[in-house]
Amino acid sequence: MRDFSKDHRWLSLNTATVRKQGDFVQIVDACARMGIRAVSPWRDQVATVGLERAVKAVRDAGLELSGYCRGGMFPSDAAHRQDMRDDNRRAVDEAKALNAPCVVLVVGGLPQYSRPGSAPSKDLGAAHRQVEDGIAEMLEYAKSVNMPLAIEPLHPAYAADRACVNTTKHALDLCDRLDPASSGMLGVALDVYHIWWDPEIHAQIKRTGKKRLLAFHVCDWMVPTKDILNDRGMMGDGAIDIPSLRRAVEAEGFEGYSEIEIFSHDWWSKPMDEVLRTCIERHRTVV
Amino acid sequence: MRDFSKDHRWLSLNTATVRKQGDFVQIVDACARMGIRAVSPWRDQVATVGLERAVKAVRDAGLELSGYCRGGMFPSDAAHRQDMRDDNRRAVDEAKALNAPCVVLVVGGLPQYSRPGSAPSKDLGAAHRQVEDGIAEMLEYAKSVNMPLAIEPLHPAYAADRACVNTTKHALDLCDRLDPASSGMLGVALDVYHIWWDPEIHAQIKRTGKKRLLAFHVCDWMVPTKDILNDRGMMGDGAIDIPSLRRAVEAEGFEGYSEIEIFSHDWWSKPMDEVLRTCIERHRTVV
Repeated sequence: MRDFSKDHRWLSLNTATVRKQGDFVQIVDACARMGIRAVSPWRDQVATVGLERAVKAVRDAGLELSGYCRGGMFPSDAAHRQDMRDDNRRAVDEAKALNAPCVVLVVGGLPQYSRPGSAPSKDLGAAHRQVEDGIAEMLEYAKSVNMPLAIEPLHPAYAADRACVNTTKHALDLCDRLDPASSGMLGVALDVYHIWWDPEIHAQIKRTGKKRLLAFHVCDWMVPTKDILNDRGMMGDGAIDIPSLRRAVEAEGFEGYSEIEIFSHDWWSKPMDEVLRTCIERHRTVV
Repeated sequence: MRDFSKDHRWLSLNTATVRKQGDFVQIVDACARMGIRAVSPWRDQVATVGLERAVKAVRDAGLELSGYCRGGMFPSDAAHRQDMRDDNRRAVDEAKALNAPCVVLVVGGLPQYSRPGSAPSKDLGAAHRQVEDGIAEMLEYAKSVNMPLAIEPLHPAYAADRACVNTTKHALDLCDRLDPASSGMLGVALDVYHIWWDPEIHAQIKRTGKKRLLAFHVCDWMVPTKDILNDRGMMGDGAIDIPSLRRAVEAEGFEGYSEIEIFSHDWWSKPMDEVLRTCIERHRTVV
C-alpha cells in the first residue's frame, strides 16, 4: 500500500465537500494554495461559474481531475426519456472539456425520484432494467469520444431515490454484460461510505481488477448518522476501517487518487481552509 | 397468495409499533378489542409489566405470538461476553414462557455499539465471526428447549451499530453452516424494510424455503427517510412493493403472520386505536 503519511500527492478533493463555502473557482484556488493536486467537480458547481471559466480555472491551477460528478439518473417515464439522454450526453461533453478521467454514474432509483415529474412506480426490477438500458446507450456515446463511465454503487439507503445499484457485485454484473471485453470504457467508482458494510466487498474488489477500478472515494460512516444524505463523516471520525479498503484496491493495482467526498452539514458549516487542512491531515494519518 | 382483503386474520402486531402509547398489557387489550390475533413483543416492554403479567395477558386475550424480539447483540469484548450469553439465554427462556414460535435475532454490529462499554473496534470481519460463534452457542441452548432462532438481516444502514448481517444471503449462509440439516431450529426473519432494495432478494427467498422462513415483517420505506431508525413508514406510504415480497414468501409455502413492525416518531405520536385501525386497513389493502 502506498505511504500517504509524508505528503498528500494522492489526495483529490470532490468539490461537493466544500460546496457551501465557495464557488468552483474559489475551491480550485484554495486547493492550489494548499497543494491539493486534483479535484472532482459536480456539474451544478461547474454550471454556476460556467464551463469555460471552470476549464480555465482548473488549467491555470495545474490541477488534474479524478472524476466528474455526475451522469445517470436513468429511470424515467417515456415523457422524460429524451431529457435524460440529452442531459447525460452533456455530462460526457463537459467531462471531456474538463479533461476528466471518467464520468461517475449515480444511476437513479425509482423514476419519480430519478427524473422528477415521471409517473410514480414501485417496480424496482423495472428500474434495474432501465438503468442497464440507459448505461448501454450512454456508453455508445461515451466510447465515441473516449470518455470512460464509472458506475458508483450507492449505499442501499439510496435505493429508492438516488441509485438502485447498491452493491459492487451488481455494478460489476452490469460491467460484465455491457462491456464484456473490459475495454476500459466502463468500470466502477468505489466509495467506502457505500461499500464498507458489504460482506462480499473484498471478493468483489478482487473481481473488479485494475482496469475497472476507475475511482476510489473516502469519507466515514458516523454513528449515529443524523441525516441519511448529509451527515457523512470526515475520515477517522466514524466506523469504517478505511485502510483495509484502500489496501484492497491497491492490491489490485489501483494507483489513482484517494478522492475525499463528504456531504455534511457539519463540515459545510466550517471555513473552507479548516476543512481542507483537516482533509490533508486525515489523508496522511487514517486513510 | 392469500387474500387479505376480507379480514385481518393474519395480521400480527409487533408491539414496538405502539410502544409510546401504552404498556404491554394495554397493547394486548387493544389488540384483543380490535380482533388482532397475534403480537410480537419486545423484551423491554415485557420487562416493564413483568413476565408473569405478560404471559397472563397474552393467555387471557387468547393471542398467539409471531415472534419474540430480541436476542443477539453478539459482538462484545471479553469482559462483556458472559453478560451477553446470560442475556441471550434469558431471551430464550422468556420466549418459552410466552409460547413464542421463535426468538428474533438482531445480531449486533461493532462491539462498542452491540454491547456498550466494550473496547471499540472497526474490524467488521471480527464482528462477523463473533456473530457466527454467538449464534452457534445460543443455538445449542435454544435447541435444548426447542425454541427456534430467526436471524433478521438488517438494512445495511445498521451495519455499524445494530446488525452486521445485512443481506438475506449472509443470513442463509450462517444457517447453512450452523444448521446444515435444516432442523427447523435456525432460520430467518424477513422484514421488507431491510430486504426490499436487494437485487438478489427473490433468488434468496427461493433459497430460504418454508422451513427456514420463520417470520415475515412489513412496514414501508419513506422517501425521504428523516430518521435512520425511527422513520419507518406505514404500509402503502413508501417505496416498497410489499405484495411482490409477500407473494414471493408465500410461493415458498409461508403461511404465518404478516407482522407489522413500525418504528416511527410520527406513528408513535398518534392514538393507539388510530394506529391499529390504520394497520388493519393497510393490511387489507396494500400488503
